[in-house]
Amino acid sequence: MASPEDKLIAEDALFHFCTRVLRQIGVAADEAAIVSTNLIEADLRGVASHGVVRFPIYVKRILDGGTNPKPEITIVRQTRTTAVVDGGNGLGHLVGVRAMEIAIDKAKEGDCTFVAVRNSNHFGTAAYYAEMAARHNMIGFSFTVGAINHMAPWGGAEAVLGNNPFAVAFPTREDFPLVLDMACSVAARGKIIVAAKEGKPIPGDWATGPDGLPTTDAVEALKGFVVPVGGPKGYALTLTVGLLSTMLSGAFFGRDVGDLYEKTSTAQNSGHLFGVLPVASFDDLDSYLDRMDKAIGDMRGARKASNVDRIYLPGEREHLSLLDKRKHGIALGPALTAELQEIADRYHVDLPLIA
Amino acid sequence: MASPEDKLIAEDALFHFCTRVLRQIGVAADEAAIVSTNLIEADLRGVASHGVVRFPIYVKRILDGGTNPKPEITIVRQTRTTAVVDGGNGLGHLVGVRAMEIAIDKAKEGDCTFVAVRNSNHFGTAAYYAEMAARHNMIGFSFTVGAINHMAPWGGAEAVLGNNPFAVAFPTREDFPLVLDMACSVAARGKIIVAAKEGKPIPGDWATGPDGLPTTDAVEALKGFVVPVGGPKGYALTLTVGLLSTMLSGAFFGRDVGDLYEKTSTAQNSGHLFGVLPVASFDDLDSYLDRMDKAIGDMRGARKASNVDRIYLPGEREHLSLLDKRKHGIALGPALTAELQEIADRYHVDLPLIA
Repeated sequence: MASPEDKLIAEDALFHFCTRVLRQIGVAADEAAIVSTNLIEADLRGVASHGVVRFPIYVKRILDGGTNPKPEITIVRQTRTTAVVDGGNGLGHLVGVRAMEIAIDKAKEGDCTFVAVRNSNHFGTAAYYAEMAARHNMIGFSFTVGAINHMAPWGGAEAVLGNNPFAVAFPTREDFPLVLDMACSVAARGKIIVAAKEGKPIPGDWATGPDGLPTTDAVEALKGFVVPVGGPKGYALTLTVGLLSTMLSGAFFGRDVGDLYEKTSTAQNSGHLFGVLPVASFDDLDSYLDRMDKAIGDMRGARKASNVDRIYLPGEREHLSLLDKRKHGIALGPALTAELQEIADRYHVDLPLIA
Repeated sequence: MASPEDKLIAEDALFHFCTRVLRQIGVAADEAAIVSTNLIEADLRGVASHGVVRFPIYVKRILDGGTNPKPEITIVRQTRTTAVVDGGNGLGHLVGVRAMEIAIDKAKEGDCTFVAVRNSNHFGTAAYYAEMAARHNMIGFSFTVGAINHMAPWGGAEAVLGNNPFAVAFPTREDFPLVLDMACSVAARGKIIVAAKEGKPIPGDWATGPDGLPTTDAVEALKGFVVPVGGPKGYALTLTVGLLSTMLSGAFFGRDVGDLYEKTSTAQNSGHLFGVLPVASFDDLDSYLDRMDKAIGDMRGARKASNVDRIYLPGEREHLSLLDKRKHGIALGPALTAELQEIADRYHVDLPLIA
């Protein structure tokens, strides 16, 4: 993955860079730390698409007035097992952590709890929040609405849907929770951007052109729509994730969803839904963990395809990446390094690269 | 869909046939009615793969001792927002309805509730249970573990995973709930069986052979594994659905899962998970329904692909099918008609076909 042009940076150094910049643009110290930890964990886990590559747009949105650096995050309605949280238009990473904390706190008496969020922003990786619950021996759910519409309904030719991500995390006896984290497209739009830049065709099932018909032309595909996994299944799935993330709280959905990168001075009113199921309310934790051990063993121990050395659990590659990058540093591509350096210069903070 | 060789049967006639047969093999009258209603709704909704086509195997399993016609369905552990239900090895359609009723009943005070089930059997369509919740103005979740293992972990060449289905249903102001109901494979295994019978090749992304490598040979594919949607995404998804359905209750998972059709004299110990989120605990029902109206309008009103007349909501085609088949009858193919007629003869009950 790392190319000769990449620069390496240590986790701590990147953390200090991010927090210092955020503090200078008005974010409180403790909240800057929460956001930066969350953001950098994506890079550590190898999910670079949701890591510091997004930092410049988060900064820009705060500067342009689209995101509030000092949000008032409030519970606007609640019962003993539900809450609706208004994120005060704060950074989604902060709002998401606060909302999942509320869900976990409400579940301390053993209840299943769900927290719906509105008036938030792009929150990074869905896995982060689901994993918070797993660390409390709860199964965690995390749903969000995408911050840009790139998908059409099945049969449609208009982007009224995001490629909405969701995550489910399970407590395990491993060093990491088993965690599903997926969006609903066959391929990430980023891959189509790369193909277009390189003048290469794309597989026929990745995207449609603006007419809603499949295309292998990457440039046409960028004018069109990414295709959901399994066709109508993926349409139904991304719609479901989007509705779960917005309908209970009143966050924006469908035509109301603005573009993260284009409309930087207006609030996105993004929505999320977080949920937790405390394992011990269903069965003794050890019995559950015994069963998880066996299930994990069944997956890992399955006969392998002739070209495969090892079977991974969902979340395992990400955990191995995290261990590796904690030790050796996070690789930043040349374009991102330049962007971050520009921000470092602007705010007179260090961006101490390893190499 | 209907071929000239198909026979038509009215919903009522099919209901009476099913209930009478079930009663003769030991199922109580009220429980036979619950099972038959559930089963026939799948046929009405056009999901024939989960309708009366399965009736013969359900009957056979009761006769062979694999399923208990008179189950004792008990709550083995509960809190105010959770329950673990032992299905007493009863028909899954009955156990599922009872368990979702418990979830809905527990949620009457406004709580989010989840009910985990063990010692159940194949329960038909996941949508049926999620829709029960939607009719009570709750968002409904339904997960189950497949009754046969047909999938390998990503990179594997051994069937230790089912093609596990799940459903999420949303209350709407339409005549039907918006409902996602999907399993995790690119194509149903039934389609591969048809291709193999006809000696035709299959698309390269449907299945792998027994070596875990992709194949277009339908016969090889039947010796191998169905491929999950989106590759590793679908693997993570079917694993997640399977774990949700079994880990909280102690139902069978992985290598322990028997074959619905092969092991007809031993209990399957199938697992499910049902959950409900009462809308009114998050926001006024009318505000939620207003938002759903707008979301639905955004989908239906999106510009259409050049070859498309109409954009459907998830669950809408199934609802239209139900209205049509309620009026005109349910089509039964010749092989299924013969199977059901054999059962009718054996139990001296009518199978009154329309044509």
